[in-house]
Amino acid sequence: MANFKEELEKVEAIVFDVDGVFTDGGIIPLANGDFIRKYNAKDGYSVAYAVRQGVRIIIISGGRGATLESRFQHLGVKEAYFDVGDKLTLLREIVERDGLNKENVIYMGDDIPDLECMNYVGIPVCPADAATEVIEVSRYVSRFGGGQGCVRDVIEQILRAKGLWAKDSLGVTTSTVARSN
Amino acid sequence: MANFKEELEKVEAIVFDVDGVFTDGGIIPLANGDFIRKYNAKDGYSVAYAVRQGVRIIIISGGRGATLESRFQHLGVKEAYFDVGDKLTLLREIVERDGLNKENVIYMGDDIPDLECMNYVGIPVCPADAATEVIEVSRYVSRFGGGQGCVRDVIEQILRAKGLWAKDSLGVTTSTVARSN
Amino acid sequence: MANFKEELEKVEAIVFDVDGVFTDGGIIPLANGDFIRKYNAKDGYSVAYAVRQGVRIIIISGGRGATLESRFQHLGVKEAYFDVGDKLTLLREIVERDGLNKENVIYMGDDIPDLECMNYVGIPVCPADAATEVIEVSRYVSRFGGGQGCVRDVIEQILRAKGLWAKDSLGVTTSTVARSN
Amino acid sequence: MANFKEELEKVEAIVFDVDGVFTDGGIIPLANGDFIRKYNAKDGYSVAYAVRQGVRIIIISGGRGATLESRFQHLGVKEAYFDVGDKLTLLREIVERDGLNKENVIYMGDDIPDLECMNYVGIPVCPADAATEVIEVSRYVSRFGGGQGCVRDVIEQILRAKGLWAKDSLGVTTSTVARSN
Repeated sequence: MANFKEELEKVEAIVFDVDGVFTDGGIIPLANGDFIRKYNAKDGYSVAYAVRQGVRIIIISGGRGATLESRFQHLGVKEAYFDVGDKLTLLREIVERDGLNKENVIYMGDDIPDLECMNYVGIPVCPADAATEVIEVSRYVSRFGGGQGCVRDVIEQILRAKGLWAKDSLGVTTSTVARSN
Repeated sequence: MANFKEELEKVEAIVFDVDGVFTDGGIIPLANGDFIRKYNAKDGYSVAYAVRQGVRIIIISGGRGATLESRFQHLGVKEAYFDVGDKLTLLREIVERDGLNKENVIYMGDDIPDLECMNYVGIPVCPADAATEVIEVSRYVSRFGGGQGCVRDVIEQILRAKGLWAKDSLGVTTSTVARSN
Repeated sequence: MANFKEELEKVEAIVFDVDGVFTDGGIIPLANGDFIRKYNAKDGYSVAYAVRQGVRIIIISGGRGATLESRFQHLGVKEAYFDVGDKLTLLREIVERDGLNKENVIYMGDDIPDLECMNYVGIPVCPADAATEVIEVSRYVSRFGGGQGCVRDVIEQILRAKGLWAKDSLGVTTSTVARSN
Repeated sequence: MANFKEELEKVEAIVFDVDGVFTDGGIIPLANGDFIRKYNAKDGYSVAYAVRQGVRIIIISGGRGATLESRFQHLGVKEAYFDVGDKLTLLREIVERDGLNKENVIYMGDDIPDLECMNYVGIPVCPADAATEVIEVSRYVSRFGGGQGCVRDVIEQILRAKGLWAKDSLGVTTSTVARSN
């Protein structure tokens, strides 16, 4: 894994799917047509912290809805794309437009619609409870499931590899992560 | 199980109960008289995918309510019956009307009200946490519990047996499965 | 346990606490001051079924709120008491008024406020995850936790002992248990 | 641990973080900008009970929102601080103003923003599923996770050490803990 750690140092962007990654895949439809989802405070903390450290976080989700979008605004994520039908085309556009080396891009997904992106990037990773096909193509399978800390796990490893995982809170408090507006 | 796989190839329709199958049995009543339920994104993906592949999916539930009905519309399921008091009579009508071979019908249920249908069809199956009586009559007990992927498990096996479980997403994205209207 | 089974045959009433018994103890406060709770469909089924069989079910809860009360109405429970400060006084009144033999009363509770009632009745029982003090005084500890089927477990055992746990659904469908009004 | 028990006898105040301690870290954003959280009835019972016994309970949370604040009012907690950006400064002010001995203060937190407070007090404790850095500095790691009873575990131990954990309910019923207003 020394090799893997070296790759983590070079990571230029971390791309995340939402359902099944930031959540356990649980979807609670409401009568008004919106969905509610249960996120994890520790995942949220690590995302807000990484953003503050200047690590590039990109969200690409097929889902949409008010609560989904506000969640990532809240965490300070500037690049969050929702209601995406074709994830690969979007990801490729971002990579080519910004001159990223796709070998240094991490993509964390959990199900079939993520497979194309996972085959495209250099470092596909997934939660412990990802679909079989996703686990098969992943370079790293977190020991944490979706919504159980898999996002935190990956971000911590990258920040540690880059020497950015600090012992202080860098001004990122739970007030950033879990307060109402 | 080679035998079982051959039977799966011939499946003409897959019938699902909802509570305890698509969910862990959890029911959250709201003050307005509606219920909310927590579904599983991976289950949802497999249902939408199967429908696109032309596999016949039928929902027969004793429950009702706006969020329940919209969930399955959303996944593209055309045959969803709610507030059903007598499941067997309805199922028999469908089978006879459409000339299905009941030996080639799968029914997944989890509790006593499902027993009659499970004894009627050729291939009764259930989640890992089904009631004892249901487990006893099942041809196949998924290793996943209700709401934990048992629907996905069964659909994947059938689609694999039929050679329809593809590696691409067939245009079924999470945007089909988990977006608000 | 042959002894225990004989006692179950004679049971005259089953009394349940709600939080931590019908639920995992999870309480979700809403902004309007109400609480929402997650119930279990299999528990609900067994309660509705027992009521139909003429088994006396009594709910005694310290909680209150619209969704709590409607839940048990829905299941057909006629004797449900909410916002109860002194559970023992209420229970003793019921027992004495109706000439019940308290040795033949089951009480299922999970925490300290249930202890007095559990010491009063002949057959105190509890979920797997009850408080230490509650487990210590219980005649039977279910292998299921609160909200995980402990209610169903106890009701099934009593109905089996009485020869009332049938293989048919007795007209109790999930439509009784999980439909909106 | 005899040593630890002696320290517990002398405890002057118990300080709790909320997300990840009173909850499993799960955060459910609603469309109106509020969050809902799932609390644990057994934790709530022990907090209300400790308050009645005159044990000082202090909540310091980075979160805010109507449901968060009403939860602790409900349990009788007088000192609950929300939307706190700098937890250590607040805690130090309280300790110095009231002449507490910080060696006799317990702080239970689960993540990086809690570290400064945990290093400040004499008895830092944490849930089983706290962040690695938090576990490393803790004097005691509960075998229960956040929202799974870790609060109850700590309060029970302290009250037992002080001889205050009674067998009766002291008038603290679930009606104190889980009723709507």
